[in-house]
Amino acid sequence: MDTEFIERLVIQNDKKIIFLIMDGLGGLPQETGGKTELETAVTPNLDSLAASGTCGLLDPVGCGITPGSGPAHFALFGYDPVKYNVGRGLLSAAGLDFPLVQGDLYMRANFATLNKFGHIADRRAGRLETEKNKLLCIKLKANVHLQAVKEVFFVTEKEHRALVVLRGGKLSEQISETDPQRTGEPPLDAKALIPEAENTAAAVRELSDKIREVLAKEEKANVMLLRGYSGFHSFPSMAGRFGLKPLAIASYPMYKGVARLLGMSLAPETSTIEDEIQALVANYANYDFFYIHIKATDSRGEDGNFAEKVKAIEKVDSLMPEIFALKPDVLVVTGDHSTPAVMAGHSFHPVPVLLAAKTCRPDAATTFGESACLMGGLGRIPMKYLMRVALAHAGKLQKFGA
Amino acid sequence: MDTEFIERLVIQNDKKIIFLIMDGLGGLPQETGGKTELETAVTPNLDSLAASGTCGLLDPVGCGITPGSGPAHFALFGYDPVKYNVGRGLLSAAGLDFPLVQGDLYMRANFATLNKFGHIADRRAGRLETEKNKLLCIKLKANVHLQAVKEVFFVTEKEHRALVVLRGGKLSEQISETDPQRTGEPPLDAKALIPEAENTAAAVRELSDKIREVLAKEEKANVMLLRGYSGFHSFPSMAGRFGLKPLAIASYPMYKGVARLLGMSLAPETSTIEDEIQALVANYANYDFFYIHIKATDSRGEDGNFAEKVKAIEKVDSLMPEIFALKPDVLVVTGDHSTPAVMAGHSFHPVPVLLAAKTCRPDAATTFGESACLMGGLGRIPMKYLMRVALAHAGKLQKFGA
Repeated sequence: MDTEFIERLVIQNDKKIIFLIMDGLGGLPQETGGKTELETAVTPNLDSLAASGTCGLLDPVGCGITPGSGPAHFALFGYDPVKYNVGRGLLSAAGLDFPLVQGDLYMRANFATLNKFGHIADRRAGRLETEKNKLLCIKLKANVHLQAVKEVFFVTEKEHRALVVLRGGKLSEQISETDPQRTGEPPLDAKALIPEAENTAAAVRELSDKIREVLAKEEKANVMLLRGYSGFHSFPSMAGRFGLKPLAIASYPMYKGVARLLGMSLAPETSTIEDEIQALVANYANYDFFYIHIKATDSRGEDGNFAEKVKAIEKVDSLMPEIFALKPDVLVVTGDHSTPAVMAGHSFHPVPVLLAAKTCRPDAATTFGESACLMGGLGRIPMKYLMRVALAHAGKLQKFGA
Repeated sequence: MDTEFIERLVIQNDKKIIFLIMDGLGGLPQETGGKTELETAVTPNLDSLAASGTCGLLDPVGCGITPGSGPAHFALFGYDPVKYNVGRGLLSAAGLDFPLVQGDLYMRANFATLNKFGHIADRRAGRLETEKNKLLCIKLKANVHLQAVKEVFFVTEKEHRALVVLRGGKLSEQISETDPQRTGEPPLDAKALIPEAENTAAAVRELSDKIREVLAKEEKANVMLLRGYSGFHSFPSMAGRFGLKPLAIASYPMYKGVARLLGMSLAPETSTIEDEIQALVANYANYDFFYIHIKATDSRGEDGNFAEKVKAIEKVDSLMPEIFALKPDVLVVTGDHSTPAVMAGHSFHPVPVLLAAKTCRPDAATTFGESACLMGGLGRIPMKYLMRVALAHAGKLQKFGA
C-alpha cells in the first residue's frame, strides 16, 4: 500500500504531534554482548516514556539498506524514500533558502586543493574559512560565464562547502560527478549518463575548467569538486497531504532543506539543544506538528566517539520534562537512521522508536533501547509508516471503508 | 507479493479449517499499564490453545489504518482489502440476498426525521420499528418512479435501515452521499464526483425529492438519507481461489453479504452464540472451511462497555470445548479489527490472532492476549496473509518452485 493512500483518510483536529529526532540514534555495542549507546545512556525520562508508550524498530529505506540523511528524513515524514529521493544539491539549495526555479540544476561543491601534479591533495581545502569561501564565491560569480547556460550562482554554505546552481538552459541531472571522493587522483570529467544529458555534461566540464582558471592562483582552494546533482523537484506538502501545520526546529541546512521542501515553517536559527526545546515551547500554540532535529548524536557517532554519543543522548533525556510539560497528544522519539560509534558512519541497522499517546497498548518494552524495542508493540515497520501511526494516535485518520 | 499469487499453489485435500471471528476483538486497557479486554477475560480454553498453537498480530489494512468491517472481512478471507473495497450498499444487498444484476446501483438508506426547518432532527427516525419500515418501503416502491432509471427497489433491513437499488440506466457509484452524518443540518444534494456521473447524481436528487414527497406526512420517518453507494462487483470465489467448500455462520446482513459475495454457503439464521456453535457441529461433515462470526464482542466495544466485552469473550471461551471436540485440522481464533471499549469504536490497533494446528512451532505466547501475541510465532503480518498461513497448515498449498 503506497504512501499516498493515507491522504484520503485524513481529517483535521487540534491534536498536537511532536517528532523528536535524535540524528543517528541507533547504535551498536563496543564489544560483543555489550550495550549500545542508547542502552548505555542513563535515560530515566525516556525509559518511563517507553514503559507507558509503545516501542518498536524502523527501517528507514529497507532491510540492509544504509540510508543517507535525505531519504531517511523523507521516510520519517511519511514520504516514500525511494520515490522521493533527490540529489543533495536540491536539499542544500532549499536549506540555504535559495529561490528555487523549475529547470535549475543544483550541485553540492567542495573547495579543494590540487597539488602541482593536478591531483587532489585535500578534498576540503584545509576546511576553508567560511569568510574566505564567501570571497571566492563572489569572485567566481563575477567571472564564470558559460556558453550554453544563462546564469551560474555560487552560494557559500559553511567552511569548504558551497552550492552551485546552473539556470537557463536545457539541463539534466543525469551526469557523473567530478568528485572522485578520494585524494591522490585528479578531479573527474563530468560525463553524460544518458544521451540527452550530453549538453549538460559539456556545460559542467566548461564550468569546472572556468572555476579552475579563476581559482588558479589560490593556495588552498584552487579547484571545486562537484556532486549531488539535482534538478528542481516539487513535493506534495505536509499540509496538503496530512492537514498539518508543521514547524521545523533544526539548524543544519540539509534538514532545513527537507523541511522547506515539504512546506514546513522554520523556527529561527538555534545553536544548542536547550534553545531548540525553548523554540518548541515558544511556538507550541501556533502549530500542530513539531519536528525537532538533534544533530549531536549523529556527529558524535560519525566521530566514532561512543562516550560522547552516550552523553548527547543523556543531555536530551535531561530536557524531556520540558517536553512532557507541554502534554503533547502524540510524542515520538526516534532517529532518522543508525550511526553506531563503532562504525563511525551511517549504518543499515533499524532505528529504535518510542511513541507515547493515550491510545498506546502495553508492551514488554520498559526501557528505551534497541533490545527492548524488539519487544515493542509497534513491531518492526518501514519508517515511512511511522507518520500514519502518529496520525492515527492523534485521531487524524478516519476509517477506511464501511 | 499479491494475494493472487497463492492460487497457483493450491491443492485440495479433506482437511478442515475453522475461522472463529470475534468481531472487534482487539482492545486497550482502561488505564495506562493495565490489561485489555481479552487479557482481562478469564479464558482457560483459549489460553491452552495459545500455549500449544502459534500467536501473532494482524494488520487488517495497514499500520495506523482503522478499517471498516467490509475491508477487514475481505482481508480475513485472503482478499486484498484495498483492491476489493466496495461501498456498503453492495454488502447490504448481498446480505439481504437481493438478486444482484450488473449495472445496479446499491445504496444504504436510513429513515430519518426532519424538523420544520428542514434540518435533520434524528438520523435514525427514533430507531423506527421494523414493521413500519416495511410498510413505508412498500409505499415507496409503489409511488417512486424516476425519469432516467427503469426500476427503483426499497428493501427493509432492520429498524431504520433499508436498501435502495436503482436498476436500468447508465449508473455510476461516483456520486456524493446525501447523509451529512450529523443532526441540525439539512440533507445534502447528491453531486457527481466525476463528469460521467452527472446523470446518476441528477437521478439520485430526483429520487431524494420523490421520497420526501411520499413521506411528507410521516411524523418520524419523513426523509431518507443515502450513502454507501456501490455498483455491482463480482469477486473470485473462495472455491475457485482456494479450492475450499466454505460455510458462513453469521447473522448480520453485512457479514452474510461478504460471505455471499465470496461464494460461501450460508447456514440458517441463528440468534445466539450457542446456536452458532450448534450450526457448526451440525454442518461439520459437509464443508471444509467454516467462518463463524461473533458480533457481541464488537457491539459491547462500540457501546464503550469494557466489562460486557470481557464477558462476551468469556462466553466464547466457555464454548470452545465444543469446537475442540470436532478436532479441526486448523483452528484460527481472531477478530476482524480492534474495537477498544475505551474508544467506543473501531481502531487502528493490530488484532490478536491464534492459530492451532499440528504443524505449529512453539513460541513464547502461553496465554491469548495482545501482549502475549507480540511474542508469538506468527509475528505481525498483514491480515490478508492469514488465509495462506491457514491453508499451509492444512497442507493445502504445494511447494513453490523446484
